[in-house]
Amino acid sequence: MQLKSNCREFICIDCEIFRVTESEAAIKEGTLSSVTLFAPYYCISLVPEAESFAVSLFPLSIQTLLFAVLCVSGINMVGSAGALNEDLRINGEVEPLPEDFDATALVRDPVPSTVADNDSVNEEGLINQGKEKRLIVLGRNIHTMSLEVTEPDADDEVTGDREAHMASVLARYKRALTERTKHHLGYPYNLDFDYGALSQLQHFSINNLGDPFIESNYGVHSRQFEVGVLDWFARLWELEKNEYWGYITNCGTEGNLHGILVGREVFPNGILYASRESHYSIFKAARMYRMECVKVDTLWSGEIDCDDFKAKLLRNQDKPAIINVNIGTTVKGAVDDLDLVLKKLEEAGFSQDRFYIHCDGALFGLMMPFVKRAPKVTFKKPIGSVSVSGHKFVGCPMPCGVQITRLEYVNALSRDVEYLASRDATIMGSRNGHAPIFLWYTLNRKGYRGFQKEVQKCLRNAHYFKDRLVEAGIGAMLNELSSTVVFERPHDEEFIRKWQLACKGNIAHVVVMPNITIEKLDDFLNELLEKRATWFQDGKVQPYCISSDVGEKNCLCALHK
Amino acid sequence: MQLKSNCREFICIDCEIFRVTESEAAIKEGTLSSVTLFAPYYCISLVPEAESFAVSLFPLSIQTLLFAVLCVSGINMVGSAGALNEDLRINGEVEPLPEDFDATALVRDPVPSTVADNDSVNEEGLINQGKEKRLIVLGRNIHTMSLEVTEPDADDEVTGDREAHMASVLARYKRALTERTKHHLGYPYNLDFDYGALSQLQHFSINNLGDPFIESNYGVHSRQFEVGVLDWFARLWELEKNEYWGYITNCGTEGNLHGILVGREVFPNGILYASRESHYSIFKAARMYRMECVKVDTLWSGEIDCDDFKAKLLRNQDKPAIINVNIGTTVKGAVDDLDLVLKKLEEAGFSQDRFYIHCDGALFGLMMPFVKRAPKVTFKKPIGSVSVSGHKFVGCPMPCGVQITRLEYVNALSRDVEYLASRDATIMGSRNGHAPIFLWYTLNRKGYRGFQKEVQKCLRNAHYFKDRLVEAGIGAMLNELSSTVVFERPHDEEFIRKWQLACKGNIAHVVVMPNITIEKLDDFLNELLEKRATWFQDGKVQPYCISSDVGEKNCLCALHK
Repeated sequence: MQLKSNCREFICIDCEIFRVTESEAAIKEGTLSSVTLFAPYYCISLVPEAESFAVSLFPLSIQTLLFAVLCVSGINMVGSAGALNEDLRINGEVEPLPEDFDATALVRDPVPSTVADNDSVNEEGLINQGKEKRLIVLGRNIHTMSLEVTEPDADDEVTGDREAHMASVLARYKRALTERTKHHLGYPYNLDFDYGALSQLQHFSINNLGDPFIESNYGVHSRQFEVGVLDWFARLWELEKNEYWGYITNCGTEGNLHGILVGREVFPNGILYASRESHYSIFKAARMYRMECVKVDTLWSGEIDCDDFKAKLLRNQDKPAIINVNIGTTVKGAVDDLDLVLKKLEEAGFSQDRFYIHCDGALFGLMMPFVKRAPKVTFKKPIGSVSVSGHKFVGCPMPCGVQITRLEYVNALSRDVEYLASRDATIMGSRNGHAPIFLWYTLNRKGYRGFQKEVQKCLRNAHYFKDRLVEAGIGAMLNELSSTVVFERPHDEEFIRKWQLACKGNIAHVVVMPNITIEKLDDFLNELLEKRATWFQDGKVQPYCISSDVGEKNCLCALHK
Repeated sequence: MQLKSNCREFICIDCEIFRVTESEAAIKEGTLSSVTLFAPYYCISLVPEAESFAVSLFPLSIQTLLFAVLCVSGINMVGSAGALNEDLRINGEVEPLPEDFDATALVRDPVPSTVADNDSVNEEGLINQGKEKRLIVLGRNIHTMSLEVTEPDADDEVTGDREAHMASVLARYKRALTERTKHHLGYPYNLDFDYGALSQLQHFSINNLGDPFIESNYGVHSRQFEVGVLDWFARLWELEKNEYWGYITNCGTEGNLHGILVGREVFPNGILYASRESHYSIFKAARMYRMECVKVDTLWSGEIDCDDFKAKLLRNQDKPAIINVNIGTTVKGAVDDLDLVLKKLEEAGFSQDRFYIHCDGALFGLMMPFVKRAPKVTFKKPIGSVSVSGHKFVGCPMPCGVQITRLEYVNALSRDVEYLASRDATIMGSRNGHAPIFLWYTLNRKGYRGFQKEVQKCLRNAHYFKDRLVEAGIGAMLNELSSTVVFERPHDEEFIRKWQLACKGNIAHVVVMPNITIEKLDDFLNELLEKRATWFQDGKVQPYCISSDVGEKNCLCALHK
């Protein structure tokens, strides 16, 4: 107990000396969860355990520096290391911990609340700021978290201190990742994978630089895996081997950037049409490529409003159309009706030689083929390109994606050869050679049948979850073809952050991926119901009205239930 | 011997049945180096050993399929798997191997020579086609190599056959990577790294989606490492923590795409100036962004010709200038003189508010600070952005890079917020969260001092290599600030491919990275000298003249020596 108490005191020393910006707030809020101190000759480690800290003391080699690694919140490493050459009082007099410090309190992300509440935005273009107007914040570099790179000491190699320090940082980081992976519901990432068999390849600098079909002299590549994966997707989307071109991208955004670029090169003066609920990368592409862009309205389901689309086409009949069709929107998982889009193009007088369709199937491009009643995505229809993410439904340690387009269109990229001065049709130059192997590995293991099984499980679980929400009186919506359950935004930011929900205005969503089991959904729901009982107990706070987001029939607010 | 003979015969069966496109040619040329057959109950493996194949036979679980994995050339896996349900004759009568098949012949890449000779181009925009005019080949998808993804059988999980098959493919692939890594000289990739301590993180889907400084709700990220790395580079290039913005990119190209985009957003009607020897991604950017682009001549060293630059500036005084400055060109490692570029801008009447400079330091951006006499790259000079690759001098399993720019400039990206509709200033959306940890790990281990030591070693080894080439009568050039040794292109494509040299016209280059030791350079040189003795023995073939590439004084052809 004596040791424990002393160690706690150290936390305070660290806060002052190492100026870890979050530590003060973290202590006040009881979110400091573990601390390790590297002092001369030994190392002290504290981790929360039941009602108190567990303390371990173990010897270290000689050090002249005292490092403190603060693992705040059990979620993210917020660290800083500095020299503490004096005032080294293991048992000395230091500021005690604040009395209201509770080591077992629920932990939260170390992002200061001012940042989280006003500016925090997430991948999918969603913003966690309730009803406030969408706020774009660029050009910031507030260092909310940084693990400083420090210069090694001359004797580091001898003492092994640096290795020990880094191993400790990594061990804590791994623990944080494990915890965060467990409590994850909001992003469409399948976190359930085991690539242990591939760890042997991490020693190689595998680079598929340039085109997958044009080999460079660099021998450490994985083109054979990449082409195998591309063939698999081309087959899925019904394009012959000798008629497609494609590559494995770094993410869904790169697929969209490529698809829109091919469209622009095919129709240099074409207008880009995309529904308002399209992924933000589509609009980023328009800006980058200096394209005229027309935003099309959406239905409340999130699907493109084809009447509005046709009206806008008719207003611009003189210019070719480049259309982004969403195969699963980011927020609501809505699937644009490709057949209806094609019908409207025809009605507006756009023949097939005057439009280019890119299908953004980031998440659902891989799920759709296995869903009955879904409008089929196939190159037998007059579409130009399809992209899908590899780290979403497939699951992959790092983001990646697959882009497939028609060979004939890629030639458009090479028209102005002298100007292009490039020998590839990819966006990037050097390309990650590990990603294709991860994809190849999973595709081989699961196969079409395996994915089919998983898609069906996800849809089943999503329906289960949506039904349970509604039974519990929580407004919720689930598009027929989707596993994205949209529901009333929880009233507690800490809870949102714990479960990593993506929110927009009054709605939040859970994307049911293969790693989201019924048990996890139940855990979440039980905790949500418990929380709601406290939020709404005195009647001052009411559930949000979400009818404008999901339609009146799906809203269960005081007015609509 | 009986077994060996039988196994060899199997190769022929496979060639016909599995239609591995290269196998026929490979057998003719003696480049088939190993074969594994999965037959019912056992597995046969052949690898070359001294004058013959070594054969091993080991039991497997029950299979209904017979798989053949052909590892051609010891370099790349060229495989195909199919069902062989009949004609299963382990000891049966099959076509014998051609008599001229020599199992120990020097192996080469399995790319058909027609492709390699005419179309093969490599990352750096170099082309391996001798004196032929540069040929841009897009829109190809010749399947020179593909590891087909096959559908699992219903009983695969029971039999474990699939696992065994994939493990075998991966084991052979790993062997090929090891061999290719050993014989690598031409690309500026440091292949010497050990990230064993980080393999524990491969189980996580780490994604730094969006901005490094704006946290998303997705908890499985590594922003704390990323910001630590960015701080390190900002310090290297002398930009204050609160004045920079940056992120870790997927490769050097993404850094260039970002730098040029920021320049264009700062000066929407600016003209892009870049020397002819700039990386092709610069010209790709101009095309993507619809920018006016002026190519500037180069000196024979590869540096930008500042007189030509000034002349071209004077012709376009009405428009702002966006300049790409090369900190190490791709082919010759030439460093553009930043100070002279700035002087020419001033002389041409361009004040600091009318130009934007992006420094493409893909390779040399990290080496330059440690080289005496090098024009210093620093944000204390009026530059806008610097990019560097992470997989080059640092070394990393997958491509990555660092992009640093001024905070004030990034705000230019957010001007037209509604149109941009994005909450980040990066090119990509989802971003690889592993790359920052790799960089953080190496930076922490090596530190500024460690890099300094390695840079000096590389420059020393490069000088040694260049001197030895010249001593041996081979024309060669080494720019003062570079570790890229340019020399007379070897006359044998097989030799070029073995050592993975990057070539352009009559020149080839070796980039001396930390993993290129004196021993490796000696091995290469000794083999080169041996080969030259045979190429030039009858006097019919003469060494190339490379004076137009490297200047007369560096050329040792019949005319200039």
